[in-house]
Amino acid sequence: MGEDDALGDSTARKLKYWGWGYEGEGLDVAETRSLLTTFAEGFGIVPSDDGRMPALEEIELPAPRLAWPAALAGICTNDRYERVLHAFGQSQPDSIRICMGDFTRAPDVVAYPENEADIAALYDWCGDAGAALVPYGGGSSVVGGVTGDVGNGFNGTVTVDLGRMNKVLEIDDVSRAARIQGGARGPELEAQLKPSGLTLRHFPQSFEHSTLGGWIATRSGGHFATLYTHIDDLVESVTMVAPSGKMTSRRLPGSGAGPSPDRFMIGSEGAMGIITESWVRLQGRPVFKATAGFRFADFLSAAAAVRAVSQAGLFPANVRIVDGVELQVNGAGDGSFSLMVVSFESSDHPVDAWMARAEQCCLDHGGVIDVDWRDNPRANLEGAVGAWRTAFIRMPYCREELTPRGIISDTFESAITWNRFEEFYHAIREATGAAIRKATGREGAVSCRFSHAYPDGPAPYFAFHGQGRKDGLLEQWKEIKNAASDAVISEGGTITHHHAVGRDHQKWYERQRPEIFGKVLAEAKGCLDPKGILNPGVIVSS
Amino acid sequence: MGEDDALGDSTARKLKYWGWGYEGEGLDVAETRSLLTTFAEGFGIVPSDDGRMPALEEIELPAPRLAWPAALAGICTNDRYERVLHAFGQSQPDSIRICMGDFTRAPDVVAYPENEADIAALYDWCGDAGAALVPYGGGSSVVGGVTGDVGNGFNGTVTVDLGRMNKVLEIDDVSRAARIQGGARGPELEAQLKPSGLTLRHFPQSFEHSTLGGWIATRSGGHFATLYTHIDDLVESVTMVAPSGKMTSRRLPGSGAGPSPDRFMIGSEGAMGIITESWVRLQGRPVFKATAGFRFADFLSAAAAVRAVSQAGLFPANVRIVDGVELQVNGAGDGSFSLMVVSFESSDHPVDAWMARAEQCCLDHGGVIDVDWRDNPRANLEGAVGAWRTAFIRMPYCREELTPRGIISDTFESAITWNRFEEFYHAIREATGAAIRKATGREGAVSCRFSHAYPDGPAPYFAFHGQGRKDGLLEQWKEIKNAASDAVISEGGTITHHHAVGRDHQKWYERQRPEIFGKVLAEAKGCLDPKGILNPGVIVSS
Repeated sequence: MGEDDALGDSTARKLKYWGWGYEGEGLDVAETRSLLTTFAEGFGIVPSDDGRMPALEEIELPAPRLAWPAALAGICTNDRYERVLHAFGQSQPDSIRICMGDFTRAPDVVAYPENEADIAALYDWCGDAGAALVPYGGGSSVVGGVTGDVGNGFNGTVTVDLGRMNKVLEIDDVSRAARIQGGARGPELEAQLKPSGLTLRHFPQSFEHSTLGGWIATRSGGHFATLYTHIDDLVESVTMVAPSGKMTSRRLPGSGAGPSPDRFMIGSEGAMGIITESWVRLQGRPVFKATAGFRFADFLSAAAAVRAVSQAGLFPANVRIVDGVELQVNGAGDGSFSLMVVSFESSDHPVDAWMARAEQCCLDHGGVIDVDWRDNPRANLEGAVGAWRTAFIRMPYCREELTPRGIISDTFESAITWNRFEEFYHAIREATGAAIRKATGREGAVSCRFSHAYPDGPAPYFAFHGQGRKDGLLEQWKEIKNAASDAVISEGGTITHHHAVGRDHQKWYERQRPEIFGKVLAEAKGCLDPKGILNPGVIVSS
Repeated sequence: MGEDDALGDSTARKLKYWGWGYEGEGLDVAETRSLLTTFAEGFGIVPSDDGRMPALEEIELPAPRLAWPAALAGICTNDRYERVLHAFGQSQPDSIRICMGDFTRAPDVVAYPENEADIAALYDWCGDAGAALVPYGGGSSVVGGVTGDVGNGFNGTVTVDLGRMNKVLEIDDVSRAARIQGGARGPELEAQLKPSGLTLRHFPQSFEHSTLGGWIATRSGGHFATLYTHIDDLVESVTMVAPSGKMTSRRLPGSGAGPSPDRFMIGSEGAMGIITESWVRLQGRPVFKATAGFRFADFLSAAAAVRAVSQAGLFPANVRIVDGVELQVNGAGDGSFSLMVVSFESSDHPVDAWMARAEQCCLDHGGVIDVDWRDNPRANLEGAVGAWRTAFIRMPYCREELTPRGIISDTFESAITWNRFEEFYHAIREATGAAIRKATGREGAVSCRFSHAYPDGPAPYFAFHGQGRKDGLLEQWKEIKNAASDAVISEGGTITHHHAVGRDHQKWYERQRPEIFGKVLAEAKGCLDPKGILNPGVIVSS
């Protein structure tokens, strides 16, 4: 077969291999200018203007090393675009390597299984061929979870895209649950649920280009900031196909029967098997909503308000704070204040009593109303709240503009108990800021927001920005990322709250997790994936 | 050393080896008479009156087969009372065997470790001696989790009672969490937390005689019926000591870093290691409370009301229903109605808005107010609600009165999604009722209540009662239990919602859990407990 054996519909909208979303989508000229001006004027981070992402035909792609058996012809391809598209996820190092044209680790073959039998056949073939197999949902990994960096022990790499397994198979509107295939992207599954009046309402920032199976494999965190934030809590049962066989947990609202099989599959990141389907818990579409915004003079006062709301047992749909730097980067503030957003919603009852109490918690801690929730159904679109919301939605498109201009701009997130939060916050900001200075030779910017909050602690989400060198961007990024990750682990946080481990966090994950638990996972992998072909280097060291 | 080497304070209150609680506690004559009258008059179950529990000196106890090394002298005993006390848990088959004087499987030695080094030394000794080691918290297992039925592959059995490791080690009132040793019983840990104004508020029915480590090892369900019901959700981190070494998970409010190590240790039932301590999430003591009671003409209408409340996102502290038979058995009803109890509580805010909406859900489904919540702080003590509450507290004391009188009386619980609930309910009641008729040759009684409720399904809790034969009680019990368990599994439920697996449920647990997951757990046990000495026969088949 030639290199250009394409699969599927060539008239469908094409995903960008160099950034977020479909071809034709992205920041417009004015948005890009505004972003670059903010960096330059606000933080002295000046873009170089000589970079661009390579055109598809310019990319130097190694010859494919694998030939699929005839029986798999209908689901395998080595088409140039497909190999390039599946070579990377959406992290900044991925973006940098795309910009550099470094496609030496691109997959040899991309497969689109249509059912579990196809997956089993792919396992058999890869096992026999000595090939590594990288499961791929929406390709939104920002931690190297879908790259071909599988080490040198394999004769090739097959990336398995679950995109054809994207159906809602069954809806149970009595229990409010649905059986959904692992390859269903957010909009696909919500569109199929819509006629039932029910919704999963799991909205990670990657929603449009990430899949249910990917969410479960990576312990995705949704937009909702308290209570059922992680997909972990929305899973009723899971089916995972491993090289050794298939595992289906029983569909149950609750159980006390031994260690949870679901919680073993959740977070397994494609290293133990491929999640082919799951029963997930749904809810009614919200009818009652309220959003309020509060300004705080400083981030730590806002954090105290979040703690009060989180410990009050109110369970808002949203309770986030954003510091002055992050508001400034996103054109939603001048750097002089921090913002807190609180939302409640319900499909069942008015939420005024809930919101009134949460508001009091904010006022008690020095909050000043930015957007009032009373009789204001458009509160989420107004004031600093609305400005930050708009920026948040556009954020994934920034990377492809910044990387070619030599700007380092990335995020990482953690979680920490409240008693250690303040020290943690200062330590991470200082370590990251110092690393930017050391790596780039000049001042950068570090910002913080809370993406999620629990009664016992927040999930702080940091962003860092610096003016890099076009010819050393990857090394500079690594230097900063390493320093930040070292600080997160030594200060007691988790290396990831919802971005997953992937290859980029594996070293710190091994420091975080109990050593013997690492051995248990290695034994588990030996049992499920005896030839060690599944996503090598992720979760279990290869 | 002689058989009577006792440890500890001989003046302390002594636990009953034949039933629930301390010597001197139990049903009084009037309570017993009332219980027996209800069985006889309500259900035709007539007690025999020739039985009694054996006195300590009457029990035929095998000579101890193990001699501990000198270094362990301070923590080991083979005192007759200690061996008898630790021979069984609190199940009805345990009670029957005590009544029969069957102590052939009593532990040879009882050990009271004071720290993790003691536990490691016990592992070394048992490994060398070829002895099985049975971890023991409060001894409240109703599923054979602490019995010495370890098979014939061992030279003896050592029961390890964690009772000396019962301290609250640290309280973090900022994050609202505490580090507590695994051997702390409910009242002990709450007493130590009390000065902080915080509480774990995990109240299983066994609260008084069960431990934090036991709750975590068995995925205990608390009194609170929605949201944070299982101890699983209250655990921030766990320390488990296994023969291969120690595992401590990082203390985190949330994490997305690989499969959860906590969720692997939670539910491991002493087969993977001993849980020595845990950071658990606390809350403020409740200030605002409201309880309401509603009568329903039939149980399924009450179930519909529970579904409405559970899917409304209100998260009541309590939402339970009890059918007419169970109310009748407990002297809280005449069998003509089912009861629903709904409670809200908060340390932070009035709960009227929550309760008003829940009440509407009940009225919508045909509920009639039994106890009104408005301006009624004593609502939980009034009407059928109060009568059932009183009976609930006294329930554990009934067993020691019923077993010697040849009455079979036991409970089991499951969980099932709402769409299958009605069919499940009928099938379980029919299978259990038929098994009682077959085993005893006469009609018995089967009742149902909900112990917990989730948006996607309830946790139905069944009780069965029958008039047994003194000389065949154990076999009769087994016949009924087997039929009920078969029905639970074939109808799609879980073999246990919060009573754990133990030895009694292992066979059905193996049918419930994914087969390959069983292999994964066996590999994990091989890694943590290579000699297979820990609680043999539980979770991993020996």
